[in-house]
Amino acid sequence: MTASDPLVLFMPSGKRGNFPLGTPVIEAARQLGVYVESVCGGRATCGRCQVVVQEGHFAKHKITSSNSHISPKGPKEERYERVRGLLADGRRLSCSATVQGDLVIDIPQETVINAQVIRKAAVNRIIERNPAVQLCYVEVDQPDMHKPLGDLDRLKVVLEADWGWKDLLVSQHLLPDVQKILRKGEWGVTAAIHRDLETSRPTLIALWPGLKNEAYGIACDIGSTTIAMHLVSLLSGRVVASSGTSNPQIRFGEDLMSRVSYVMMNPDGREAMTKAVRQAVNELTAQVCAESGVDRHDILDTVFVANPIMHHLFLGIDPTELGQAPFALAVSGEVHTWASEINLDVNVGARVYILPCIAGHVGADAAGATLSEGPYRQDKMMLLVDVGTNAEIVLGNRQRVVAASSPTGPAFEGAEISSGQRAAPGAIERVRIDPATLEPKIRVIGSDKWSDEEGFAESVAATGVTGICGSAIIEVVAEMFLSGIISEDGVVDGALVERSARILSNGRTFSYLLHDGSPRITVTQNDIRAIQLAKSALYAGVKLLMEKQGVDHVDTIRFAGAFGSFIDPKYAMVLGLIPDCDLAEVKAVGNAAGTGALMALLNRDHRREIESTVKQIEKIETALEPKFQEHFVYAMALPNKVDSFPKLAEQVQLPPRKVLAEAGAGEGGGRRRGREGRRGREG
Amino acid sequence: MTASDPLVLFMPSGKRGNFPLGTPVIEAARQLGVYVESVCGGRATCGRCQVVVQEGHFAKHKITSSNSHISPKGPKEERYERVRGLLADGRRLSCSATVQGDLVIDIPQETVINAQVIRKAAVNRIIERNPAVQLCYVEVDQPDMHKPLGDLDRLKVVLEADWGWKDLLVSQHLLPDVQKILRKGEWGVTAAIHRDLETSRPTLIALWPGLKNEAYGIACDIGSTTIAMHLVSLLSGRVVASSGTSNPQIRFGEDLMSRVSYVMMNPDGREAMTKAVRQAVNELTAQVCAESGVDRHDILDTVFVANPIMHHLFLGIDPTELGQAPFALAVSGEVHTWASEINLDVNVGARVYILPCIAGHVGADAAGATLSEGPYRQDKMMLLVDVGTNAEIVLGNRQRVVAASSPTGPAFEGAEISSGQRAAPGAIERVRIDPATLEPKIRVIGSDKWSDEEGFAESVAATGVTGICGSAIIEVVAEMFLSGIISEDGVVDGALVERSARILSNGRTFSYLLHDGSPRITVTQNDIRAIQLAKSALYAGVKLLMEKQGVDHVDTIRFAGAFGSFIDPKYAMVLGLIPDCDLAEVKAVGNAAGTGALMALLNRDHRREIESTVKQIEKIETALEPKFQEHFVYAMALPNKVDSFPKLAEQVQLPPRKVLAEAGAGEGGGRRRGREGRRGREG
Repeated sequence: MTASDPLVLFMPSGKRGNFPLGTPVIEAARQLGVYVESVCGGRATCGRCQVVVQEGHFAKHKITSSNSHISPKGPKEERYERVRGLLADGRRLSCSATVQGDLVIDIPQETVINAQVIRKAAVNRIIERNPAVQLCYVEVDQPDMHKPLGDLDRLKVVLEADWGWKDLLVSQHLLPDVQKILRKGEWGVTAAIHRDLETSRPTLIALWPGLKNEAYGIACDIGSTTIAMHLVSLLSGRVVASSGTSNPQIRFGEDLMSRVSYVMMNPDGREAMTKAVRQAVNELTAQVCAESGVDRHDILDTVFVANPIMHHLFLGIDPTELGQAPFALAVSGEVHTWASEINLDVNVGARVYILPCIAGHVGADAAGATLSEGPYRQDKMMLLVDVGTNAEIVLGNRQRVVAASSPTGPAFEGAEISSGQRAAPGAIERVRIDPATLEPKIRVIGSDKWSDEEGFAESVAATGVTGICGSAIIEVVAEMFLSGIISEDGVVDGALVERSARILSNGRTFSYLLHDGSPRITVTQNDIRAIQLAKSALYAGVKLLMEKQGVDHVDTIRFAGAFGSFIDPKYAMVLGLIPDCDLAEVKAVGNAAGTGALMALLNRDHRREIESTVKQIEKIETALEPKFQEHFVYAMALPNKVDSFPKLAEQVQLPPRKVLAEAGAGEGGGRRRGREGRRGREG
Repeated sequence: MTASDPLVLFMPSGKRGNFPLGTPVIEAARQLGVYVESVCGGRATCGRCQVVVQEGHFAKHKITSSNSHISPKGPKEERYERVRGLLADGRRLSCSATVQGDLVIDIPQETVINAQVIRKAAVNRIIERNPAVQLCYVEVDQPDMHKPLGDLDRLKVVLEADWGWKDLLVSQHLLPDVQKILRKGEWGVTAAIHRDLETSRPTLIALWPGLKNEAYGIACDIGSTTIAMHLVSLLSGRVVASSGTSNPQIRFGEDLMSRVSYVMMNPDGREAMTKAVRQAVNELTAQVCAESGVDRHDILDTVFVANPIMHHLFLGIDPTELGQAPFALAVSGEVHTWASEINLDVNVGARVYILPCIAGHVGADAAGATLSEGPYRQDKMMLLVDVGTNAEIVLGNRQRVVAASSPTGPAFEGAEISSGQRAAPGAIERVRIDPATLEPKIRVIGSDKWSDEEGFAESVAATGVTGICGSAIIEVVAEMFLSGIISEDGVVDGALVERSARILSNGRTFSYLLHDGSPRITVTQNDIRAIQLAKSALYAGVKLLMEKQGVDHVDTIRFAGAFGSFIDPKYAMVLGLIPDCDLAEVKAVGNAAGTGALMALLNRDHRREIESTVKQIEKIETALEPKFQEHFVYAMALPNKVDSFPKLAEQVQLPPRKVLAEAGAGEGGGRRRGREGRRGREG
């Protein structure tokens, strides 16, 4: 290519180059490293390589692009349209259309070949594609007695000649089938080639007679309570189904450490739990396949993220070591294996990739969230928090990333709260307290009315008002603080008994009557203590990371996970779960771990990206940090004993300081014991 | 290294170089590419790296070598001797001994570490070692909460640091065991690393606590009637057991084509036959392990050769295509897989390597024999013949190698012979016929006396004389020819009825009474015809190859396989099975295919060698060669109608030409039909 040749620019990547007249557009794209899918190898039969010419003068790029600068539709594209239907407006097959002048070419993000598959907008993100599995249609020479190369060997020859696959390995399970498939396809077959690492040899993992024009992958996040999965086309990148299911591990124990205990106590415990989680993954796979009409045997690649204990159980590894210092992972690096090795019911040649774990308490799920949110890709100091039984915390920017876990315990999930319950119809999800009257108003899941609105009682008649869901507990405690019911030390002000019937005396402590029905829903002093302990653990972990980074504030905050999606960032900050920050910069990002898995599924460059990132992340073991205790004690106060929240104060009027001594209280020592006890349980 | 540094020369390779004073001898060897085993990584605990210093002046190499030119035994070797016993006379540990002057170093072919294992001299050949599996002892860092790398990941770090294994893959089955093994070994473990091709990433396939100082491999030839196996130490190269067993496939049909038929006729036929052959391999593995006291879980690498049909059945491939033109192999190239993929009962991480097949009728067994005998390694024109139901024929030298198969049928195995039987006590194995009296003398398996010697009757009383074994049928027909009983056309001379009671009339043909007992053992006209058909097919194949090579004689002949080991080359040549050749150059080489497998097991360079050789071998499909028929007809005569045997004539007095017409005979056409029928059956 010389400067006098036509200039071709590809969007959205912006890659450009000069190419001689007559160069197929797909060839120009490949030379520039622009990913354009193709299965048929330029035969104009798969329709995967569609592009669109942009019309007009692009001053910024100094290009005038026009459909007259691309070759007109020739016999191959005409045949394609006869057989497969007309190409959408302006679409061209880049294997057949050639460069005839300067061009701006748009690579559509989606090329829908099988129109019946419906897209679900589960992940609102465009992921550039470079999947580890590629479909390659080839036409194999027929057997020749004079050149008695085996059928498979001739297939390998043409895969090298047409597609450049050298030193191809072949999955053993294909050997018995090769001859029948070749003959059924009348020597035209589609091969699925897996190559993840450039340093590994490519492997033939599946083979179909004729042109096979679709292949799928799953991206799955195995959480402690929920397993979430995306089913996605490896060819178009479309997410065709997303679903979730409860982790059946729950029957072995609600929290992770009770599952480790189950393994330690039961001789077959590890095996039973491994079987259960794999079965759940298989059932969820069946579900997403059924929803989208996809054959599970068309699933050729799978990517998983999980917390360390689920990661180990899923791989068949005894997680006992994770339950005790030094919390040694059996394997922390990324795992490459075969779906059949871990009994996944997908294509027998399908591959498995599992993201690396960051540390003994910061799993592949945190790595997935890190990949998704990319603190290391930008300049702002980003705090990424995934709150669960253990909070996984990542803090960093382009310069440096640090990570830790903090043993928040299950309070944020409503487990240690007297009226706590799972998010379900009837659960209180929103709370406001009038600082003058101390009267609350509430909203309940299943109703769109506040309790002071007309028709509220009718709207909750069916479900009743049954408890407080995990995220609302943050809100009610924060509102109690803002309305002066509790002091900065979290003590319910007993003096208010005289002002409001909502303040109840329980002997030496007091509680707040949130809803006077059946059941009676109160927030007790113990509930507040549980939230304080959890938020102090989280905040102390964040503070340690901020100290490591040498910063006194963070620029932006991401809440990952279901908890983060439901809480109001303002209240989280009022309680001091997270450090002061512009509220506009606090965002819930949903299942970021699952999004990270999806990115790694669709683009193997993202695998390399997170592998090298995880190697560079500095891990902090909170249990070993002498200052954790100090940060923890300061963080017991609302929002914090020593840290100020100037940005929060701009938007929320924080109450004047009110210090009350709780009868019999003595935080530090007791908490230290509690914390260590919990670490021992939850690892 | 500079020329002023001491010169070190290694035997038997002859590799040499200059090394600075103080260089460990093993380091010098490695720099020169001389293979010295070591498991412990220079800790002087495994004792595998023993060498011997040659004393004296080596004029040819201009080196004066002396034990005073190597460092004296230091604390490490002294500790080794205290713990493991004294090193044999003159032996030194090359990891600890350093270069102190010019040295000639001998690498012993065997370093016996476990003295209880008895060597069997099954293969009298020194095979330079470069196995695909290597044992590597390492000491792994203990877990550190500040650097939360997983246990496996720290193992990988030290395997790279100590042994240079980069980008190590890990067999999935090890993940659940890594932590226990590391702790059991108190962080000292021995890893088995498999790397066959330099282009493939090395794989961790097994792991043991502490120092594991022995690992084994099996080399196996799966023949149509017999499966033969060597069990060998991958560390020392010693063959510790060799054994054979009947191929249970026999119950599905005596010859290969009846086995293909069984597959075609029975829906579960392929599966049953695959199961049967794998089970037989497993039973034979158990047997060689029991004989040598080896734990089958210590078998880490396996190499197989087989004819094409057994090759396919063993791999689970339907062999139907091999039964019909164009005789397409499913896979002709080498196969790399895991033992667990084909249900071999060895270490779960063990590997499988199967040599490439040469053509649809010239299998991996022929490739093994070719590797063993190496026609391509030398200048003489070598004919390599492996006689079975199909004869596999290879002809060539350093310049060019050609190969074919010929459908000899089962006559050479005694199957179409009226008194034929397997080689067993009671079978006639040697025959001489007096040309004057036409009286025979015989020897029988189980007796060391000729029938004209005193005590013969007593020596065979227990077994009786029951039949003619496969190899003796060659001898008896040749003796009948030499004594004038049959003509050059193979017709029994009926006129001799008057001279000898041994000549029996059977209506229109005659036969020869070899042994007048119970049973009566005769050689019929049909028996002779069967041998003629078989030998003509073999010879015609050889002639085609000679024509391809443009030679009118061969320099040297190798008979591979059991048949070749028992026949007398002279009689084979008298009958014209093989072309004229100096009898001293005709050698039986036993199970050369198995020896080739053993070479590929012990040295992966031999794998590359046979892979590239097979790619270059020119294959001739005898069925497609127009001249086959002509050669076949000429070869029906004894020894041949047109070819002369001058070298044979120097040692054997061939009878004067005698041409007799057999009643009702008409060779050519009938044979052609017979041949095609057989090709259809035997593929």
